[in-house]
Amino acid sequence: MKYTIAVIPGDGIGPEVTNQAKKALDAVAEVYDHIFLYEEAQMGSCAIEATGNPLPEKTIEICKKADAILFGAIGDPKYDNDPSLRIRPEQGLLKLRKELDLFCNVNPVKAYDQLIKNSPLKREIIKGTDIVIFRELTSGIYFGKKEVSKDGKNAFDVCSYCEDEISRIAHLAFKAAQGRKKKVTLIDKSNVLETSKLWRKTVTEIAKQYKNVALEHMYADNAAMKLILKPKSFDVVLTDNLFGDIFSDEVSVISGSIGLLSSSSIGNNNALFAPVHGTFSEAKGKDIANPLASILSAAMLLEHLGLLEEADAIERAVEKSLDLNITTEDIKGKNKYAASTSKVGDFIADYI
Amino acid sequence: MKYTIAVIPGDGIGPEVTNQAKKALDAVAEVYDHIFLYEEAQMGSCAIEATGNPLPEKTIEICKKADAILFGAIGDPKYDNDPSLRIRPEQGLLKLRKELDLFCNVNPVKAYDQLIKNSPLKREIIKGTDIVIFRELTSGIYFGKKEVSKDGKNAFDVCSYCEDEISRIAHLAFKAAQGRKKKVTLIDKSNVLETSKLWRKTVTEIAKQYKNVALEHMYADNAAMKLILKPKSFDVVLTDNLFGDIFSDEVSVISGSIGLLSSSSIGNNNALFAPVHGTFSEAKGKDIANPLASILSAAMLLEHLGLLEEADAIERAVEKSLDLNITTEDIKGKNKYAASTSKVGDFIADYI
Ligand SMILES: CC(C)[C@H](C(=O)O)[C@@H](O)C(=O)O
Ligand SMILES: CC(C)[C@H](C(=O)O)[C@@H](O)C(=O)O
Repeated sequence: MKYTIAVIPGDGIGPEVTNQAKKALDAVAEVYDHIFLYEEAQMGSCAIEATGNPLPEKTIEICKKADAILFGAIGDPKYDNDPSLRIRPEQGLLKLRKELDLFCNVNPVKAYDQLIKNSPLKREIIKGTDIVIFRELTSGIYFGKKEVSKDGKNAFDVCSYCEDEISRIAHLAFKAAQGRKKKVTLIDKSNVLETSKLWRKTVTEIAKQYKNVALEHMYADNAAMKLILKPKSFDVVLTDNLFGDIFSDEVSVISGSIGLLSSSSIGNNNALFAPVHGTFSEAKGKDIANPLASILSAAMLLEHLGLLEEADAIERAVEKSLDLNITTEDIKGKNKYAASTSKVGDFIADYI
Repeated sequence: MKYTIAVIPGDGIGPEVTNQAKKALDAVAEVYDHIFLYEEAQMGSCAIEATGNPLPEKTIEICKKADAILFGAIGDPKYDNDPSLRIRPEQGLLKLRKELDLFCNVNPVKAYDQLIKNSPLKREIIKGTDIVIFRELTSGIYFGKKEVSKDGKNAFDVCSYCEDEISRIAHLAFKAAQGRKKKVTLIDKSNVLETSKLWRKTVTEIAKQYKNVALEHMYADNAAMKLILKPKSFDVVLTDNLFGDIFSDEVSVISGSIGLLSSSSIGNNNALFAPVHGTFSEAKGKDIANPLASILSAAMLLEHLGLLEEADAIERAVEKSLDLNITTEDIKGKNKYAASTSKVGDFIADYI
């Protein structure tokens, strides 16, 4: 079969890790007799430099037409340290989410046996953990009205949610739970926020349609603690845009390495796959960044296209690289030698 | 000397742990020849039941006149499960913070040697950790305008900050850092939010007045991860109301037990001291709740009154109870017998 894949390498280590994911996809294409047509597109800091726009029209077009989107990372330290810059790389990603209505961000986290030793958490706390966070991605305080007073001394961000925005992702979360441990934990701050109350009300109502799934409520502050104290007690976590941003990164510590986590951002017509990690600018161009998260994004992408066996082939190759300690610096543990980014990519492509 | 202390036991285990703190204060009064006059006041669910109001006028009056406030906890599961109840215990606490302008919430977290084994984090990660979180407490999305549409299908919460609200707590954070490891980490989401940009701008400006303190910037998602991965790299953390709520609870896992953490909420004219933990309703009235956080709040209160030796006496008594394993169920570890709430309180009072 023939598939068109939009590829957005982005900034920092984005390009180099995305290249390894493409190697893995090429290997899959060869073995399983598919054709993957890559359409490269710009977004982020590199797009601002090239076009003045963090999300050129062309990129939106390419993404809309593609069967799926493979994304690296965006951002640049020069923007972080200067909040006065009004055009920013992140706007590209936020706008893409909105344009394609990628409302559901799915973040799976597992404790990889080979990496448990790298986690700051004790083995007995994390062993067997299997959580997936459903983060709402196109509304909330990220997309509400924003304002700064003329004298620059007052600022506002509006968090807004409507019932439909909550219910469409809630249904996806409950459906996922049905195929898992049958539990959904809704994280909110409904003892303080009106939007959280709406989440609680809406999700409680929807839960009635999924009788075999248990719904648990948890305040965000308590959740920040419980996700670390008792990660095994979670199955599917459902939450809003801002809380989801925080908790997806928090639970990454369970996996033993953020260098292995990838996530998907799903809409009704499009889907984007990317590492959870960011641009890691210090490592840019040094061929030392861990490509596994990007390679595993490619596996998620294949799964999304219905190519389950193919996705599995990538996952097995990743497992093998861990077993054989063919890994980058960040997860090499007591290993004497670390492999380079491209070396890991080559191994995985060969193994497939 | 004579001091008036407003005591708000609140709900759940609030009353029983606060009683132990009073025992400790009484012991201090005897040994150091002070008089502590307790003025009991109602707030939370118990106040709603007694008066229909989560924060009766009388309570505000008592608090305003007191030299300091000792608070337990508020909340009740019946409100948590019914977001439609419009009068809620939490409103009492939020209103008290606002009425007394308690804008600065200080949350210290240390890894207690005796409790390191109870932490889900590995010893080498947390040993030596000493963080204090400065959370803004009277503004942000907690106190911004809130709205629900007539049909109940849309909800809004406004996050708002002005320069003055940021700068007054920032100064306190920098001053604290000067007496510590000389580092302030500002946590925000300034790559997305206007209020966060205002925080970053304002705090960066103020930092120039504290040349011997280093200012570090961190996005909230990244911070959620780093606080667990590298807790020792933090000193003073400065952040807004909502982020501070989440991160104060998150870092509690470092201490090995939330049952030992207390925090102060400071304004220009008043100060309130309380455990970080909540009402723990399941344990209410069972004499099993850990009173140490409340007892340590009393120590913080004495420190605030300038009674440093007295505060130290309480802290040493708490250390002793840990050394001798005279502790409640939750932190007894491999100990065969747990002490009751009142037993721990008695021991500490006797030791003082
Ligand atoms: C880059 C940034 C805007 C983004 C977000 O906060 O959503 C990132 O942290 C993420 O989680 O994908
Ligand atoms: C009870 C609740 C409103 C409160 C808050 O969120 O501020 C509590 O969690 C706290 O941190 O003191």
